[in-house]
Amino acid sequence: MRLYDIIAKKRDKKELSKEEIEFFIEKYTNGEVPDYQASALLMAIYLNGFTKEETANLTMAMVNSGDVVDLSMIEGVKLDKHSTGGVGDKTSLILVPMVAAAGGKVAKLSGRGLGHTGGTLDKLESIPGFNISVEEDKFIDMVKNAGLVIAGQTQNLVPADKKIYALRDVTATVDSIPLIAASIMSKKIASGSDAIVLDVKYGEGAFMKTAEDAEKLATAMVNIGKSVGRNTSAAITLNGEPLGYAIGNALELKEVIEVLKGEGPEDLRELCLQLGAQMLRLGNIETDVEKGRAKLEAILKDGSALAKLRELVVLQGGDPKVIDNSELFTISPLTHEVKATKEGYVYELNAEGVGVSSLLTGAGRHTKDDALDYGAGIILKKKMGDYVKVGDVLATLYSSDEAKFEKAEEELQKAYSIQSQKPEKSPIIHKIIR
Amino acid sequence: MRLYDIIAKKRDKKELSKEEIEFFIEKYTNGEVPDYQASALLMAIYLNGFTKEETANLTMAMVNSGDVVDLSMIEGVKLDKHSTGGVGDKTSLILVPMVAAAGGKVAKLSGRGLGHTGGTLDKLESIPGFNISVEEDKFIDMVKNAGLVIAGQTQNLVPADKKIYALRDVTATVDSIPLIAASIMSKKIASGSDAIVLDVKYGEGAFMKTAEDAEKLATAMVNIGKSVGRNTSAAITLNGEPLGYAIGNALELKEVIEVLKGEGPEDLRELCLQLGAQMLRLGNIETDVEKGRAKLEAILKDGSALAKLRELVVLQGGDPKVIDNSELFTISPLTHEVKATKEGYVYELNAEGVGVSSLLTGAGRHTKDDALDYGAGIILKKKMGDYVKVGDVLATLYSSDEAKFEKAEEELQKAYSIQSQKPEKSPIIHKIIR
Repeated sequence: MRLYDIIAKKRDKKELSKEEIEFFIEKYTNGEVPDYQASALLMAIYLNGFTKEETANLTMAMVNSGDVVDLSMIEGVKLDKHSTGGVGDKTSLILVPMVAAAGGKVAKLSGRGLGHTGGTLDKLESIPGFNISVEEDKFIDMVKNAGLVIAGQTQNLVPADKKIYALRDVTATVDSIPLIAASIMSKKIASGSDAIVLDVKYGEGAFMKTAEDAEKLATAMVNIGKSVGRNTSAAITLNGEPLGYAIGNALELKEVIEVLKGEGPEDLRELCLQLGAQMLRLGNIETDVEKGRAKLEAILKDGSALAKLRELVVLQGGDPKVIDNSELFTISPLTHEVKATKEGYVYELNAEGVGVSSLLTGAGRHTKDDALDYGAGIILKKKMGDYVKVGDVLATLYSSDEAKFEKAEEELQKAYSIQSQKPEKSPIIHKIIR
Repeated sequence: MRLYDIIAKKRDKKELSKEEIEFFIEKYTNGEVPDYQASALLMAIYLNGFTKEETANLTMAMVNSGDVVDLSMIEGVKLDKHSTGGVGDKTSLILVPMVAAAGGKVAKLSGRGLGHTGGTLDKLESIPGFNISVEEDKFIDMVKNAGLVIAGQTQNLVPADKKIYALRDVTATVDSIPLIAASIMSKKIASGSDAIVLDVKYGEGAFMKTAEDAEKLATAMVNIGKSVGRNTSAAITLNGEPLGYAIGNALELKEVIEVLKGEGPEDLRELCLQLGAQMLRLGNIETDVEKGRAKLEAILKDGSALAKLRELVVLQGGDPKVIDNSELFTISPLTHEVKATKEGYVYELNAEGVGVSSLLTGAGRHTKDDALDYGAGIILKKKMGDYVKVGDVLATLYSSDEAKFEKAEEELQKAYSIQSQKPEKSPIIHKIIR
């Protein structure tokens, strides 16, 4: 077999066999196939597409390029959740304890963030003592006995994806639905889960600009899941303004605790209830999403969801005092109020812009070696549809460095669009694909 | 400007600007653009195509990537000729002296051959003393005063083409009409000619398999010529069986001399007359091809075409005795007759197969460091449409090495298809594009 012939076949719009796709992934990962051949093939895939079968075969070939987490010794359906990302998206930190409290088994491997705020791991590390490195035995034990774990990835999962993604990034082949779908699903499957709930965002700040494109991507991923025996469903959700009011690591954890107490912002709570109900259905905990939702609402009310987060923190070495009293979180000492310079409705609140502003307060990383200011970030006071007068506080910025406020405010002001007209708000979940 | 954006533009089926194409060629040639970006762009061009303007801009950007031969101090139209290549194609060696004898100015830069037989330069080097290295001053003088020169390329012509071709060759992006057209035309234009006659072959052994594809390529090249002020016309010619009877370096030169004496094989003579008449028209020597053809027939008859070849040989240091008496050429001493094993008509004679057989006698090179056996090769005795009986001689092989005959015969036998039915012969020139 020669990669040349595989390129020519896809160039000529023919379907690649499982063996051909495996050959490509194996030889590219081990360096036998050079970048220039891989990029020609990726462009041919971008332009001529991949069938459902090709996409599923690509996904499994990528899974097999590295380690695969084996959770088979744990009884029941092991659940996972993935979001295509959004500013202020702290849903994982709510969903994992909530679903575990309802009887689900959630084994979550997470990453660090590069960009607006830290990732899930960074947010957890704002809890004193919390340890994201969990040995394999303990990892399995936690899922078995507590129903949850959130840890950093130590294994060499899907090395093919790292290499291919880096190449796509410089050859204008990122925006290909089969390639995106295989990249996301390969990582979820290699993490060992049996069932996956996906949150696929659309909107200006999101990877997919329209609901239609997000639906195509979601369908491609659900199809992969079906093809390889991993029950998958996806919510198509609007990525308009940030989720909730808090952006920043410790600030977001405080908001997570509010939601787990049955309070917190409506948009964030609603998204978590809907995604969580899907997870309970896929995990065979409840037969339909209505029952699942009711169960989750009860769990938030009776305190067992918050208790599960506390259990997670204790098991991973963290100090549970901050969970019991979230006022104990270390928040950056300096604050700065951003005020409206115009009267009217908040017509748009650009999530991307809020993210950049948050990064500038110190809550995110420019490069992977940057240190995080865990207590920095933004608390929004006004969101889409709110009416403001000149001088009203739109948001409060938090930072350990006074000098950061000027640029952070400048970005945040740009993110707010204030107009005389009241905006129409779309529901947060556009559609569920299952 | 970033190559990433140029790739994305062509990926999205948009037309690239002159500046974008120049940027690509300049930065790829100087190594600033990596192979993996270039190959992604080439695949996007392959699949989404190039307009006439893009193709012309690509051609000129490639021309400007290296040296350009300046023939402007020579009066009149400087003519050049290019063939997409064929086994036994010795037309350049006939056309150059014939057209020069008719008053044309032909400055020909040629290459060495890799494959079945040597190239034009290798064939000329079977003349004792012939020197293919011609200093610039002498090169200009010869065209000015004698009307012809055939020399090896010393300048750094179209380095972009060498680099791009090598990349296309390993990324399945060779068979793209705009890329082939720009590659061929950039080399002709950089060689300094004002007008170009192209011989575009089609058939099983040729680069273009059908007359339709050959016509598309020819049209693309004629369009480039028109766009950049180089008068260009193209003949679409059948590459069925080899041209003439001789394959091999010295063997082909003997056949060249026959044609220049007004004799020689009909197919070869006919193709040369038609291509030559086009050259005289483009060179403003004759107003129409009929007059050009008549002039060339007269020139073959009166001996002035052969005299022009003799003049070329003398000017480039060769021994003219072999021209005066072609029996003096050194032909390989060993011969081997290949005989028919079946009775019937020669229904097909596969040029590719004859070429491989010739290579096996020692007439061609496997790798660029191989030494040539100048006197080796094949004299065909039977061609398409001839009736043969078992034991009739199909061809005579020539070599300096007895051991080579076995495999060479095997290939040649495979090239002959003998059937009871008489084949229909297509005319050698299918169409002229101008």
